Amino acid sequence: MFRLTVNDYVMIAHSLPHEFFGPAQQMHGATLSVEATFSRPELDEHSVVLDIGHATRLLNDALTPLRYENLDVHPDFVGRLSTTEVNAQYVGQKLASGLADLPEIGIIVTIHENPRAHVSYTVPDRT
Amino acid sequence: MFRLTVNDYVMIAHSLPHEFFGPAQQMHGATLSVEATFSRPELDEHSVVLDIGHATRLLNDALTPLRYENLDVHPDFVGRLSTTEVNAQYVGQKLASGLADLPEIGIIVTIHENPRAHVSYTVPDRT
Amino acid sequence: MFRLTVNDYVMIAHSLPHEFFGPAQQMHGATLSVEATFSRPELDEHSVVLDIGHATRLLNDALTPLRYENLDVHPDFVGRLSTTEVNAQYVGQKLASGLADLPEIGIIVTIHENPRAHVSYTVPDRT
Amino acid sequence: MFRLTVNDYVMIAHSLPHEFFGPAQQMHGATLSVEATFSRPELDEHSVVLDIGHATRLLNDALTPLRYENLDVHPDFVGRLSTTEVNAQYVGQKLASGLADLPEIGIIVTIHENPRAHVSYTVPDRT
Amino acid sequence: MFRLTVNDYVMIAHSLPHEFFGPAQQMHGATLSVEATFSRPELDEHSVVLDIGHATRLLNDALTPLRYENLDVHPDFVGRLSTTEVNAQYVGQKLASGLADLPEIGIIVTIHENPRAHVSYTVPDRT
Amino acid sequence: MFRLTVNDYVMIAHSLPHEFFGPAQQMHGATLSVEATFSRPELDEHSVVLDIGHATRLLNDALTPLRYENLDVHPDFVGRLSTTEVNAQYVGQKLASGLADLPEIGIIVTIHENPRAHVSYTVPDRT
Repeated sequence: MFRLTVNDYVMIAHSLPHEFFGPAQQMHGATLSVEATFSRPELDEHSVVLDIGHATRLLNDALTPLRYENLDVHPDFVGRLSTTEVNAQYVGQKLASGLADLPEIGIIVTIHENPRAHVSYTVPDRT
Repeated sequence: MFRLTVNDYVMIAHSLPHEFFGPAQQMHGATLSVEATFSRPELDEHSVVLDIGHATRLLNDALTPLRYENLDVHPDFVGRLSTTEVNAQYVGQKLASGLADLPEIGIIVTIHENPRAHVSYTVPDRT
Repeated sequence: MFRLTVNDYVMIAHSLPHEFFGPAQQMHGATLSVEATFSRPELDEHSVVLDIGHATRLLNDALTPLRYENLDVHPDFVGRLSTTEVNAQYVGQKLASGLADLPEIGIIVTIHENPRAHVSYTVPDRT
Repeated sequence: MFRLTVNDYVMIAHSLPHEFFGPAQQMHGATLSVEATFSRPELDEHSVVLDIGHATRLLNDALTPLRYENLDVHPDFVGRLSTTEVNAQYVGQKLASGLADLPEIGIIVTIHENPRAHVSYTVPDRT
Repeated sequence: MFRLTVNDYVMIAHSLPHEFFGPAQQMHGATLSVEATFSRPELDEHSVVLDIGHATRLLNDALTPLRYENLDVHPDFVGRLSTTEVNAQYVGQKLASGLADLPEIGIIVTIHENPRAHVSYTVPDRT
Repeated sequence: MFRLTVNDYVMIAHSLPHEFFGPAQQMHGATLSVEATFSRPELDEHSVVLDIGHATRLLNDALTPLRYENLDVHPDFVGRLSTTEVNAQYVGQKLASGLADLPEIGIIVTIHENPRAHVSYTVPDRT
């Protein structure tokens, strides 16, 4: 099994309007440092998991809808909380769409939202 | 699959009294930078793996018995070597006790004991 | 010369409403990872620059007004842009107030706002 | 399950002579920061996955053939592209040879080739 | 005093053909992780040291001549050893040319060439 | 001005027996990640600040007396508290002795004792 991980980041504003989230109910924001990991049982004909440039563009495309955005008014987040877990799932689903033609490539998204916590999401139903 | 990782640290003294450990047989110490990873197939009703504050308190509670301690005279380490692997297992078991009511949450503990080595322990018999 | 550095972080929302800032004119946010460095020509009577607990509380006190806040509506930022440089200056001035009785301690604040850029501010008129 | 990870690095020159690789077709080089992860269901009689000194020597031995080398003229890379994925596989196979007597120890090699990408290889057919 | 630091990287091949350098006399390579620090006594009219985009482009322009290059045959390195110190000086001089119109901005270049060593160069004769 | 920084680490036990230090009065320990920075106005005849191998050996020699030691009973720490600041000074003085023949080389020692604090010491009376 081989894995390739590339990273990028976005800066977003949001609030988490439920008392469960304490002070994070207020409008605040985060730098989301995002890692996308692509896994594959065997390398392709160029001896790589995926071209790094291609992987980097896939991640950039997945993050573009989030760059410098307020997720509280973002059309893709209507009716759902933009927790870091949900954001990771959102990015993972975008990456999966971008790799719809290569279902044998597994996808994991990891988001570091602050120096003391990070989350990850493994896209299901891929090898 | 979703994962949440939080981190904390403790500073401990100990020795590893068996010739196998060479100079580490002497009384010395370590800063243990500890990551606790919690995994879950689906998010809870608040769209998170676990509240970050809750996860951080669970880790703090698991580490409290070790803070500023000499493990050579620690009651929980009588009769066993406090290798980093054993320390990770100790923290993992404490976390598992703290999450006894949520057996579907997987637990991994990672300890960085120096810049050139780290260990991890996956708590068994959890989903 | 001795230096002590402690770190903490805050998560804020803001916008930078001038065309100079391009897409950052929109409401977005950031995780600000903040380092406070205290310098001193000689150690104190306890052989430290400052008690780490004290230094950590000073930094926490300086950051508390910013935690989970939208700087666009923050009373301390009326009429000024909350660039990372200005934020570092803000934190530095708070730290200087907290150390008004110890003018021989120099203060530098460093803020990492994303993985590819950080800024720092040296408080003037201290030794 | 327990894991031990140790790290080291090598500095190599190479080229990737296929148009697929764009500017990396030119003779260039890389610092490869390498992590070797060893996993084991249960600890050994010394309460460790592997002695850290032993693990470090295994990794050093696996990397020695690559240190300060031009992989374009390296006998072990004749007829194959020295992509980071292939380099990870090369190191993994060397580690597996060094641990031929301990097949229950799993092996993963991770290589960071630049601040924005890393790859990993899991040696197959080990527990 | 305010400082802004941005980072980027290049991957180069080279050799250091003098017995002083031991095994580094051979053709090998390195990933150079480069930080450019810009300092200024007071902020500009936009409350920044320099626009981050501008700073990033300045660093990119300074690094472009080095990307994927073999410094042994690079016209800018004829007759001089491409030690990391010399490379830092090279980048610093390029940055100074790019900021010839802003001599009050100080410049420091830091290059991490492997996980266990880095160098820096302060451009002289700037404020 | 040029700087070269190399790093290494030691693992020590100690206590800080004064009520000022709270729980750190107990016997505990630390991993000290140590950076030694050497500065020089101009490069030497080999276009470096110092040979990296030489710098690494100087740091190793300075740290050897501390490796796997209990500083409470260490002959070099009789009558003084082994705070991280004092430890940095200790290492700095050892490095200065090792470079007695090169007084134009400045020396700074930085010690990271945990993920949330580090200290540094600049050796005085060197250029």
